[in-house]
Amino acid sequence: MALAELEQVARNGEGIDAVLGILRQRYGERLMTGHSIREQHAHTTSYIPAQLPDGVFAPANVEEIQDVVRICSEHRVPIIPFGTGTSLEGHVNAPGGGISLDLMGMNRILSVNAEDLDCTVEPGVTREDLNRHLRDTGLFFPIDPGANASLGGMASTRASGTNAVRYGTMRENVLGLTAVMPDGRAITTARRAKKTSAGYDLTRLMIGAEGTLGIITSMTLKLQGIPQAISGGVCSFPDVERACEAVIATIQMGVPVARIEFVNALAMKAINAYAQLSYPESPCLFLEFHGSEAGVREQAETFGEIAGEFGGGPFQWTSVAEERSKLWKARHDAYWACLTLRPGTRGLSTDVCVPISRLAECIVETEADIAESGLLATVLGHVGDGNFHVLVLMDMHDPREIAQAEAFVARLNRRALSMDGTCTGEHGIGQGKMRFLEEELGGAVDVMRAIKQAIDPLNIMNPGKILGARRS
Amino acid sequence: MALAELEQVARNGEGIDAVLGILRQRYGERLMTGHSIREQHAHTTSYIPAQLPDGVFAPANVEEIQDVVRICSEHRVPIIPFGTGTSLEGHVNAPGGGISLDLMGMNRILSVNAEDLDCTVEPGVTREDLNRHLRDTGLFFPIDPGANASLGGMASTRASGTNAVRYGTMRENVLGLTAVMPDGRAITTARRAKKTSAGYDLTRLMIGAEGTLGIITSMTLKLQGIPQAISGGVCSFPDVERACEAVIATIQMGVPVARIEFVNALAMKAINAYAQLSYPESPCLFLEFHGSEAGVREQAETFGEIAGEFGGGPFQWTSVAEERSKLWKARHDAYWACLTLRPGTRGLSTDVCVPISRLAECIVETEADIAESGLLATVLGHVGDGNFHVLVLMDMHDPREIAQAEAFVARLNRRALSMDGTCTGEHGIGQGKMRFLEEELGGAVDVMRAIKQAIDPLNIMNPGKILGARRS
Repeated sequence: MALAELEQVARNGEGIDAVLGILRQRYGERLMTGHSIREQHAHTTSYIPAQLPDGVFAPANVEEIQDVVRICSEHRVPIIPFGTGTSLEGHVNAPGGGISLDLMGMNRILSVNAEDLDCTVEPGVTREDLNRHLRDTGLFFPIDPGANASLGGMASTRASGTNAVRYGTMRENVLGLTAVMPDGRAITTARRAKKTSAGYDLTRLMIGAEGTLGIITSMTLKLQGIPQAISGGVCSFPDVERACEAVIATIQMGVPVARIEFVNALAMKAINAYAQLSYPESPCLFLEFHGSEAGVREQAETFGEIAGEFGGGPFQWTSVAEERSKLWKARHDAYWACLTLRPGTRGLSTDVCVPISRLAECIVETEADIAESGLLATVLGHVGDGNFHVLVLMDMHDPREIAQAEAFVARLNRRALSMDGTCTGEHGIGQGKMRFLEEELGGAVDVMRAIKQAIDPLNIMNPGKILGARRS
Repeated sequence: MALAELEQVARNGEGIDAVLGILRQRYGERLMTGHSIREQHAHTTSYIPAQLPDGVFAPANVEEIQDVVRICSEHRVPIIPFGTGTSLEGHVNAPGGGISLDLMGMNRILSVNAEDLDCTVEPGVTREDLNRHLRDTGLFFPIDPGANASLGGMASTRASGTNAVRYGTMRENVLGLTAVMPDGRAITTARRAKKTSAGYDLTRLMIGAEGTLGIITSMTLKLQGIPQAISGGVCSFPDVERACEAVIATIQMGVPVARIEFVNALAMKAINAYAQLSYPESPCLFLEFHGSEAGVREQAETFGEIAGEFGGGPFQWTSVAEERSKLWKARHDAYWACLTLRPGTRGLSTDVCVPISRLAECIVETEADIAESGLLATVLGHVGDGNFHVLVLMDMHDPREIAQAEAFVARLNRRALSMDGTCTGEHGIGQGKMRFLEEELGGAVDVMRAIKQAIDPLNIMNPGKILGARRS
């Protein structure tokens, strides 16, 4: 993304100086302003160039967040919430400078209510931390975006991942949350009941708001029982179309797949090379089934039959934990495996999501586009939801190549939009996709602007993300 | 609800006269102002006294809605969207007069995308109409609030019902929608992709907004495959506690029940008398299981074992369609059956929702409260979600009895709040529960007010519902 295209946020130098002075006085060394720490807090897995905050502060509790927000509000200085820095669209950049609020110190699991299948956590708890903590309860939190992200960050980008096809996204799995709003007030969006019709759905408004409306300070999450049995396997297909048709048939038959992941031929090649495996180097589906012993057998057999009808298979599946782990390690390491296809390059990871009836067409056209444009890129997808990623390997020293990759991303987004899809299924808008959001939703973006203006009239909460100034 | 306690909405008589004149000129007889039609459009299943609109208009398309909204906006006249009039908290009343917008003429099913398991409908389509239309596709729309409500109304109150425990509520089952906003602009909140991280979740904001932010003009809904097999049955328990404990155990075991409904002893008595049945007149659970032949058998057997552990049963279940229909007809007719317990009275139906760990306690205390207060009332619940209803039978000619019932409702709501629950799981706030919303969410209600003010600054969209003027 050429920096020139990012939303400009005016720098309020005087206000920033004042805030740094006040925070220094109040919190001493806890206000961190060294270059490397500031660089860390703008550095993410994104290829978008870093824009550093002026200071980093790690609050210990809600009161400290309120304090910092009130000070920043008074001096009109941006606040950028920070978790694990694994977002992909420039969410943690500080285009107008300001304070990066590092929430990783707020990592307490406040309660686990096993009978109610819920728990309440602070935003800095990561999903792996939570699942480790839950292990002895027989429960787990299903959302798995790949990275060991913080749950606050996952809520803020409306994250999902491999098993959203069965368990939903962060949207469906947060019962309620507490947040500090831009004026420093703390609010609770919902009680712990499993459903409610009480007023506007502020929980869902904060989920996916990318920190632009306030700072999430705790969340009550839905939990799932660890399935009695899990089975899984890999199934190869002669081409993309037939792999996608098998996905549609599986979903339509109502097979409650827990994961159904597409990996294209080039990515399979990378996975084999990286982990010394010998999977077929053709389009593959990685699957996982959750249920009773009988249930997972039935699901796997049903899928095997469907795969056969579309020329896929044979589908070999296993319930043996070690074999499943090996299989999913291969899938989870796909990102790193793909990077080794061209050492020294950086990966541009982008995502779109389309109705599954258009998925095959969208992936086929995208693969043709990659081939024509001479880029090196792999395709991986959470295809049960119609969501897929393209990882473009770019030489960051070659501006022409970056421009080509950006042009490809623009074509990919417009292709998804032309198929009634979205410019992002799970990564969020951040800085990278603001213009596609406008193309996708048009006038609705003005309603978002009105909400932003009403809740954050001074535009101090993560400015320059999601919403640009109105261009029309 | 004593009318004096309802939110006052100032009547803009001059504006209303102007709007009636313009609509009469533009639409002739299509603007209906007769007393009986206006009465019909304020009359609902609620016990809250009717407040009539000044005119009723049934738009044929989005352009006519935009036209009416622009006229009403210009003259600052309220618009109250109307569906089937089955809401329960005074949602369709016109406290400041204005135009009732009857959307039942907009009842086209615009598309069914079987491969994507979705369809797009206008707001006046009822859930039964939709399911009739879908019958030959092998798909169905699962949300069932009891009444044959319009889908627009169901979205607006965030409705759910008997099988939300498996399929979720309207919140989880609307992919996106189109709406006319208070300034007359038409917006689309999302494309047809199954998930998205593109900007603020305006879809969820409109769902449950009860027509106070705009008028829903179409919705894209998720569909489900009709299960290969369905089984169901009734199971009696010695007391409320053990019925609720069996529910918790069932949910915790991960049994994917499609329905798990609680009916208290008095309601069972009413059902038996109404339909000449002979169920045990003790607390009962009505259950339904969806899945493969083997799956529903396994689920029913697992539940039977759980019920046995809690002194319930024997659990007799059946896959025979006629027997299941009879069973669910009994459950669905429970409302009418209960009314016959005391002929000539009117039912006050209220709902709360608590974490299921508190459900037994909440129902037991509520039954004791009913007994102490001398009211006649039955308890029915979608207990897999912790949601239950109380139907109080009131003599509407006895102000003392109405006051007693209202005091009981207040205690019930506060009991649910004290257990970390909500004042409404599925009925919505309307006029009836505004004060409990304040008690439930406190400062978050101010954020809702800010959103309302930003989107509907003239307060013309269903004024006097959900949000009152700030009282603090």
